[in-house]
Amino acid sequence: VLSKLPDVGTTIFTVMSRLATERQAINLGQGFPDFNPDSRLIALVDEAMKAGHNQYPFMPGVAPLRQAIADKIETLYGHAYHPDTDITVTSGATQALMTAIMATVHPGDEVVVLEPCYDSYVPAIRLAGGTPVPVPLRTPQTDDPYYRVEWDRVRAAITSRTRLLLINFPHNPTGAVLNDADLDALEKIVSDTGVILLSDEAYEHIVFDGVLHASIARRPALAARSILIGSFGKTFHITGWKLGYCCAPAALTVELRKVHQFMVFTVSSPMQFAVAEYLKDPLPYLNLPTFYQAKRDRLFEGLKKTRFRPLPSPGTFFLLADYSAISDVPEAEFAKWLTTEHGVAVIPIAAFYGKPDAPSSNRQMVRFCFAKQDATLDTALERLQRV
Amino acid sequence: VLSKLPDVGTTIFTVMSRLATERQAINLGQGFPDFNPDSRLIALVDEAMKAGHNQYPFMPGVAPLRQAIADKIETLYGHAYHPDTDITVTSGATQALMTAIMATVHPGDEVVVLEPCYDSYVPAIRLAGGTPVPVPLRTPQTDDPYYRVEWDRVRAAITSRTRLLLINFPHNPTGAVLNDADLDALEKIVSDTGVILLSDEAYEHIVFDGVLHASIARRPALAARSILIGSFGKTFHITGWKLGYCCAPAALTVELRKVHQFMVFTVSSPMQFAVAEYLKDPLPYLNLPTFYQAKRDRLFEGLKKTRFRPLPSPGTFFLLADYSAISDVPEAEFAKWLTTEHGVAVIPIAAFYGKPDAPSSNRQMVRFCFAKQDATLDTALERLQRV
Ligand SMILES: CSCCC(=O)C(=O)O
Ligand SMILES: CSCCC(=O)C(=O)O
Repeated sequence: VLSKLPDVGTTIFTVMSRLATERQAINLGQGFPDFNPDSRLIALVDEAMKAGHNQYPFMPGVAPLRQAIADKIETLYGHAYHPDTDITVTSGATQALMTAIMATVHPGDEVVVLEPCYDSYVPAIRLAGGTPVPVPLRTPQTDDPYYRVEWDRVRAAITSRTRLLLINFPHNPTGAVLNDADLDALEKIVSDTGVILLSDEAYEHIVFDGVLHASIARRPALAARSILIGSFGKTFHITGWKLGYCCAPAALTVELRKVHQFMVFTVSSPMQFAVAEYLKDPLPYLNLPTFYQAKRDRLFEGLKKTRFRPLPSPGTFFLLADYSAISDVPEAEFAKWLTTEHGVAVIPIAAFYGKPDAPSSNRQMVRFCFAKQDATLDTALERLQRV
Repeated sequence: VLSKLPDVGTTIFTVMSRLATERQAINLGQGFPDFNPDSRLIALVDEAMKAGHNQYPFMPGVAPLRQAIADKIETLYGHAYHPDTDITVTSGATQALMTAIMATVHPGDEVVVLEPCYDSYVPAIRLAGGTPVPVPLRTPQTDDPYYRVEWDRVRAAITSRTRLLLINFPHNPTGAVLNDADLDALEKIVSDTGVILLSDEAYEHIVFDGVLHASIARRPALAARSILIGSFGKTFHITGWKLGYCCAPAALTVELRKVHQFMVFTVSSPMQFAVAEYLKDPLPYLNLPTFYQAKRDRLFEGLKKTRFRPLPSPGTFFLLADYSAISDVPEAEFAKWLTTEHGVAVIPIAAFYGKPDAPSSNRQMVRFCFAKQDATLDTALERLQRV
C-alpha cells in the first residue's frame, strides 16, 4: 500500500493510553475525565432513544441542538449565528477540524499553525494537499511564565497562498489563553487578507482565575471570516459520545456541509437530543472553571513537591511540567519510562510538533491531564514523588 | 469561498427528507426504518452509559465489538479477520467509505465505480484528488429484469492508474445482488492488477428469496486485497446511531486507521458496547431477509396496482419503479411533484449518477424505501393508486 501519510504513526494518545492499560498505570495522558457525566444527561439519552430518536437525524444536526448552540454563543460572546445556515453538529471537534480543512484547503494552499499544536492538524492539512506553515509559540520566560503568540511572526508567515490560519485557545497542550489585546492583533493581521480563521475552541469553558474566554465570536470582524469549533465531550464529560460542532457564516457553512454529509452524513440522534435538552438548564457549563481550577491547583501544588517543574496553566484541563531535573532522555522515551516504571502515563509534547523525532522537538516537557478524580490525582502524585 | 466541490449540492436524501417533513408526506425516500430497534438494544446502551462507558473508547473500536464483527464474518463467510489488526469501527458506513478513499486514493489516481452508485462515492473520490471512472450496470432487459455487472466493461475500465474498484452489493439503489459467477469474474479481473477492491456491503443481511449474500469475504483472494465495509445502522434499525466498520488486511488497516484517527478519532462508546453485547445473541440479523421480504412483496404487489411499474429487487430495502406511464418530466421534478401533490417522497435515481442533471441521467425511475411499518406502506400505496 502506498501511504498517503507515510510519516504518521498511531496517534500518541492511543499509544500512551494503550501502554497505560497494559501496565495498569494511572492515565494522566489522553485528555478525558475518569468520572461519569451528570446522571441526568444519561437519562436524557435513554429518553431520546425510547422516544424514537434512533434514525438519521437531519444532516446538519437536530434543530433544538443547533438552536441551543446559537443561544449559548450569543449569550456568552454576543455573536448571533443562525442555526439553519451557520451551525453544523459534528462527530466531535476532531471531525469538525477534518471537515473544515477538507472543505477549504486546496492542493498547494498554505495553512499557518501555531506550534505546539494538536496532532490531527498537520495530517489533516497534508491529506487535503496543503502545506502546514508552523509558527512557534513563544516559550515561557523568566519574567513571564506563559506561552504566548508572537503576532509579528504570524503576520510574517502569511503569504498570498495562505488559505487558513489555525488557532486553538485555550491551548492544548500548554493551557495558554488569549486576551483582548491578542484579539486586536489577530483582527489587524487578517483584516486585509483573504485568510479564513479556523478557531478550535474545544476548551472554551475551561478558563481559570476569573478570566473570560476570548472567543473569536466576541469580534464581529473575526466571526465573519472564521470557522468556530466547539466540543461537548470536553464540556459535559462525555468524550466518548463524540459530539461537537462548527459555526461559520452561511457561505462557508454551505461548503462545510458538502464535506460533512459525505464524511459522516450526520451525528448520533439520541446524543444530540439529550444534549439539546440538557442545554436548557441554566448554563450547565458555568461550574467548570471552579471545578477544574481546584484540580489544576491540586496537581500544580503536588508537582511542586516532586522533581518535576510544573508550568502555570490558565486554561484547558492540561498542564505542562519540565522533567530536566530528573532525566535528559527525549520526551517519548521519558513518557514510556514514567508509565512503565512509575505507573503514571503522560504525553510527550514533542508529539505536538511537526517533527516529533527531531532533537529540536525535545524540550524535556510532558503534559499532565487533571480531568481526574481527586483520589486519582493524589495517588498519581504519591507515585510522582518517588521519581 | 473557493469551493472544493463546486458541482455538489445538498445530498438528495436530505433534500427529499426535508421536503417530506415540510409537506407532511410519507417518506419512502431516504433509507431508514420508521420503527424502533429492539428495546433490548436501547436498554444495553443505557447499561453501558451507567457502567461508565462515556469516555473515548480505544481508537480502532472497543475490543468486544471488533471480536464480535470478526466472529460474525467468519461464521457467515469463512474469512478470519483479526480483530486487532484488521477491523476498525467507524461512524457508519459513510465514514468508512470516506476514510477508505482518503487513505488509498492519491491525486491523479483513477477509481472505477459502477453507476448508478451511492451519492457519496464520487465526491469522496474528488476530495482525495482522484478521478472517478464510471461503468454503467446493465439495465433490465425483457428476458432478465435485474441490473447486472458487465464484467468485461469493468475489466476494460481498469488501467495502470486504477487504485480502487468500488462495488456495492446488495446494490443501492437497484437492489441487485452478486452471485458466485460474479465473484469468479471479479477474482479473475483483479488477480493480475494492483487494484484494491472497496466493497460496500451495508445491506449484506438483506438478501431475499433464500439467496446467500456473495460477500467478498467468501473468497480469500478477494479478501486479501479488499476493504470490506459493513453497517449496523441498516442491520439493527439504528441508522441514527452511526455505527459501521471496515475490515482489511493489516497493512491496509494501518493506513485506514491513520486517517480514521484524525477524521473522527473514535466512535460512540456506549453504542459500541451495546451492539457488542447484542451480537452475543444467536445471530440477531438472521430474521432480516424474512422480515424485509414481506415488506418488499407488499410494496411490489401494491405498486403493480398503480401506474408505476416496479422492478424486482433481490436485496436491500429499496426497489425501483418506472413512472413513464404517469409523466415524462425528469426524475428530480417528478419526485418533488409526487411529494408535494401526492404526499409520498421518493428518490430520483438520477442522483446516483455522476451527471444527475444531464438528460441521459433521466430514466424516469424513482427509488422507494420499504423499511417502513406495514401501515405506512399501505397508506402510501393508497395515495400512489390515485396518481
Ligand atoms: C482525541 S484523543 C485526545 C484527547 C485530547 O484532546 C488530548 O488528549 O489532547
Ligand atoms: C446516509 S442517508 C441515505 C441513507 C441511504 O443509505 C439511502 O437512502 O440510500
